[in-house]
Amino acid sequence: MPRIGVFDSGIGGLTVLRALRTQLPNSDYLYLGDTARLPYGTKSPATVARYAVQAAQALVREGIDMLVVACNTASAQGLEALRTAYPQLPVMGVIQPGAEAALQATCTNRIAVIATEGTVKSGAYGAALRRLRPNVEVRELPTTLLVALAEEGWLNGLEAEAVLRRYFTTLFDAPSPDTLVLGCTHFPLLREAMAATVPPDVNIIDSAEATAQAVARFAESDAGTGSLRLMATDGTERFARLAQRFLGTTLSPQDIELVDL
Amino acid sequence: MPRIGVFDSGIGGLTVLRALRTQLPNSDYLYLGDTARLPYGTKSPATVARYAVQAAQALVREGIDMLVVACNTASAQGLEALRTAYPQLPVMGVIQPGAEAALQATCTNRIAVIATEGTVKSGAYGAALRRLRPNVEVRELPTTLLVALAEEGWLNGLEAEAVLRRYFTTLFDAPSPDTLVLGCTHFPLLREAMAATVPPDVNIIDSAEATAQAVARFAESDAGTGSLRLMATDGTERFARLAQRFLGTTLSPQDIELVDL
Repeated sequence: MPRIGVFDSGIGGLTVLRALRTQLPNSDYLYLGDTARLPYGTKSPATVARYAVQAAQALVREGIDMLVVACNTASAQGLEALRTAYPQLPVMGVIQPGAEAALQATCTNRIAVIATEGTVKSGAYGAALRRLRPNVEVRELPTTLLVALAEEGWLNGLEAEAVLRRYFTTLFDAPSPDTLVLGCTHFPLLREAMAATVPPDVNIIDSAEATAQAVARFAESDAGTGSLRLMATDGTERFARLAQRFLGTTLSPQDIELVDL
Repeated sequence: MPRIGVFDSGIGGLTVLRALRTQLPNSDYLYLGDTARLPYGTKSPATVARYAVQAAQALVREGIDMLVVACNTASAQGLEALRTAYPQLPVMGVIQPGAEAALQATCTNRIAVIATEGTVKSGAYGAALRRLRPNVEVRELPTTLLVALAEEGWLNGLEAEAVLRRYFTTLFDAPSPDTLVLGCTHFPLLREAMAATVPPDVNIIDSAEATAQAVARFAESDAGTGSLRLMATDGTERFARLAQRFLGTTLSPQDIELVDL
């Protein structure tokens, strides 16, 4: 696969980029975080779709052969608009791969999904799961505070666990789901605290990992120079600082190109 | 005062509007929440200034005689641009009144300020406090999670207190400040939980209240019909739902006009 464009509303999609680079280390990547307009999670579907097409335009202009929509909200609300605007470009969202992985993991056929308010409201995970298996039971819960926890870097400890416990009390009421889908790119950072607070024997499905595996199957080859270009629409300093935690690589603000959409 | 325009990046400024309507119940109000582009707290100063001027344009077009910038980030980063763009229009931010009230309250001359990352980074509260009293000691801490707690409606209980305690441990290290400025419009909602977790004898200064008092002194009269128009740039349904908590009035999405900046 020559060049893979990855688009997110901000820095969260770097968890998807990280998973992609683990699966396809030699491919070339172009990442765009629309940091000037984040978060998408609280915006209307029409606005999110419009922003997604603008971001795709910028990536296509730089030359990409495939587009990964790393943002759950944009995957939920922008995929159709993107496929209409770029019918020749392979476009992959994070929701379908996450849904497929969850269905493979569940034994009880009861799946819980945590995500931003926008993703939950779109009902996209529920729709994707039911399309694949009509009788699946799905519970979706918006967990907005987890985004703030991940960005604050409070990934473990009292505060993260108190917040997670409150969300999980609602989510894992009997009859309890046996599979939890992390439907927001920020959430893999809290995975350890989740493992400590989720009921025992619940499978945790990371959509970022599932998406990277799906892209690797689609790409078939991993030829390239392993290059990485990072672009953002605002705040390169904050981007670089937070990116270290999300991408696992040390960055300076000079490593991020500022672009206008 | 004929018509007062109130501008915020979203719904938080409704706490300022609420305080204004307590001080000046007969004045007419026009509120604009730039919900399509919130939050401002993580955006660059140049972007925030540009957004503030665009919002002011929309309010001036509808006819206002005074502009209250209810957003701390926009007050910190957009006031100069607004005064340059509209030299005839009285423009009042929330930072100067908050700083004045804090200086009146402190006995030890040590003041703590909590705010968004953007407000803290601008150093605007520290600058305003030191301009009024050069030898004041100021500690500023970004407390991003409190915005999410307020929007989630987790205003009391274990989670709010665990998060507040972690922030306050850093903030009230000896020699402890005796005055805490709420430098974000969302924070008054957490006032009860703050009172339970802040060290004893710390004065809590609400910038929204201080600003409303300053506007009332400036306005001198409260003549009008007591009308209220609410406008937002996106998500009128979410606006109406959250507005109830912030404004203390029941609203339906039809009460909010959708505008494009």
